Amino acid sequence: MEKEFVFGHQNPDTDAIGTAIAFSYLQNKLGYNTEAVALGEPNDETAYALKQFGFKAPRVIKEAAPEVKAVMLVDHNEPQQSVSDIDKVKVTHVVDHHRIMNFNTADPLYYRAEPVGCTSTIVWKMFNEFGVEIPEKLAGLMLSAIISDTLLLKSPTTTDDDKKAVKALAKLAGVNYNEYGLAMLKAGTNISNKSEEELIDLDAKSFELNGHNVRVAQINVVDLPEALERKDAFLKAMKTSAQDNNYDMFMLLITNILDSDSEALVVGSDETKSFFEKAFNKELSDSEAKLPGVVSRKKQVVPPLTDAFNA
Amino acid sequence: MEKEFVFGHQNPDTDAIGTAIAFSYLQNKLGYNTEAVALGEPNDETAYALKQFGFKAPRVIKEAAPEVKAVMLVDHNEPQQSVSDIDKVKVTHVVDHHRIMNFNTADPLYYRAEPVGCTSTIVWKMFNEFGVEIPEKLAGLMLSAIISDTLLLKSPTTTDDDKKAVKALAKLAGVNYNEYGLAMLKAGTNISNKSEEELIDLDAKSFELNGHNVRVAQINVVDLPEALERKDAFLKAMKTSAQDNNYDMFMLLITNILDSDSEALVVGSDETKSFFEKAFNKELSDSEAKLPGVVSRKKQVVPPLTDAFNA
Repeated sequence: MEKEFVFGHQNPDTDAIGTAIAFSYLQNKLGYNTEAVALGEPNDETAYALKQFGFKAPRVIKEAAPEVKAVMLVDHNEPQQSVSDIDKVKVTHVVDHHRIMNFNTADPLYYRAEPVGCTSTIVWKMFNEFGVEIPEKLAGLMLSAIISDTLLLKSPTTTDDDKKAVKALAKLAGVNYNEYGLAMLKAGTNISNKSEEELIDLDAKSFELNGHNVRVAQINVVDLPEALERKDAFLKAMKTSAQDNNYDMFMLLITNILDSDSEALVVGSDETKSFFEKAFNKELSDSEAKLPGVVSRKKQVVPPLTDAFNA
Repeated sequence: MEKEFVFGHQNPDTDAIGTAIAFSYLQNKLGYNTEAVALGEPNDETAYALKQFGFKAPRVIKEAAPEVKAVMLVDHNEPQQSVSDIDKVKVTHVVDHHRIMNFNTADPLYYRAEPVGCTSTIVWKMFNEFGVEIPEKLAGLMLSAIISDTLLLKSPTTTDDDKKAVKALAKLAGVNYNEYGLAMLKAGTNISNKSEEELIDLDAKSFELNGHNVRVAQINVVDLPEALERKDAFLKAMKTSAQDNNYDMFMLLITNILDSDSEALVVGSDETKSFFEKAFNKELSDSEAKLPGVVSRKKQVVPPLTDAFNA
């Protein structure tokens, strides 16, 4: 059978990379010929998880079409978050937990989306449905993906299915998920070795909101005051990035993973800043606002912003 | 829990209506509050299946938003095949076996598509995955849907999953699927009691192909020559419909369900007709072309047309 690539979104996180490896393994067991690849290097947290369970980082591809005719997507479907030449290959499978947007195909395909906290939770269900055993190390990687996306089951995106998957996978992997999870999340919070330009691009996504091009980046920390010492440098990097990329608004969410609170930094026009203030019912003070309890870009940031921009 | 509608596409067939009833039953067992409705009256074949297994036809709705805030779609996803006010309601679930096109959501949702012959085959798998028992009569209705979509497992869209589902559902329903299936298919082939205008609208779908509005209708018969006696009247009705609805091309596939061959009638501009000829590598003779072995609009008609319109 002709080879297909399996990969997650650009600026890959632990779900994008871990679930690509897991789904590729499952599909190969089912008779497909796939290779898990990535659209970027692993971040610190993902590197920690890969090392912990003995996986090498998937090789990074810039284009798919020179090597394969068909691909399988995990953890994304929107073309602008996918490989640059996604329009030149056939998508045969998608497993995802996001909204569906601008995703069109010529042929019927396998598409499995569920509104759960992590794509690995869905892949865990598929392993069970197909009766395929999950190897110990792979269980650890899938566990890492769910811990990452749900911030150790504390994000409001967390569902009962995610909790069940975490318990089952932790057992298979032979780890205490609370201890391991905190260590893994902390591994992703070292911001001291990175420039502000790097940090605002590590986990950043673009959204088109009522004709406005909005960028929302997120970084996880364990010490908010330490991160905010670099506020002026963050704002400067965000302004430059917004100018270079025509973002009408750039929002950086700095999330304390220990107490599940965030601080938002926002640059943009007076109009887009007013949309932000309306969305969160908060006034920006010197480009900054506290967002207590907000940890999920998907569930707690994009929907209110979408409403405010459309109102 | 607030009520949601479950429905299939416009011009409903046995899959659209039967699977809406089956998926609504499953979702209600899982704790949702749903009502299966339809976007049109059942055709003769579907009416036969409903009667055979003791179901009433679902009530026909013209709009969803006046009654519900959220809906579940089966057997379709393209907005122009759905309820007229689909943009006014939230889609929470989709179960389908078609390509994905122009389907966009604001939020994550449950989406389950597989490239199998019939949506009921996927719903049958879901009953098994959730461990919900399928009542005898419902099994018969789901069986009818699969027989309809796969032309008794003879269409090239038929997969091993469809065959497994047919065997399991026939057992649950206590029927011989070959005997019952042929009787049901034949019940849908009586064209003598319908006008050409009715026949070209019974099972018709619209597709946007590279900016062209293309209508593809299909009727099943057991006697092709008898159907072709009405060719001029069909062409006249197709021309009128194309004018009234701004179709750039109208194609009618007349399928002999006994020998799995089709005859195509085509009206449109010289340009769109040339796309048809390129798609099937056949010259139209007096607006007509033989398409031996072609029975599936989805697998054997839309993909080559899409390629030809995009080339």
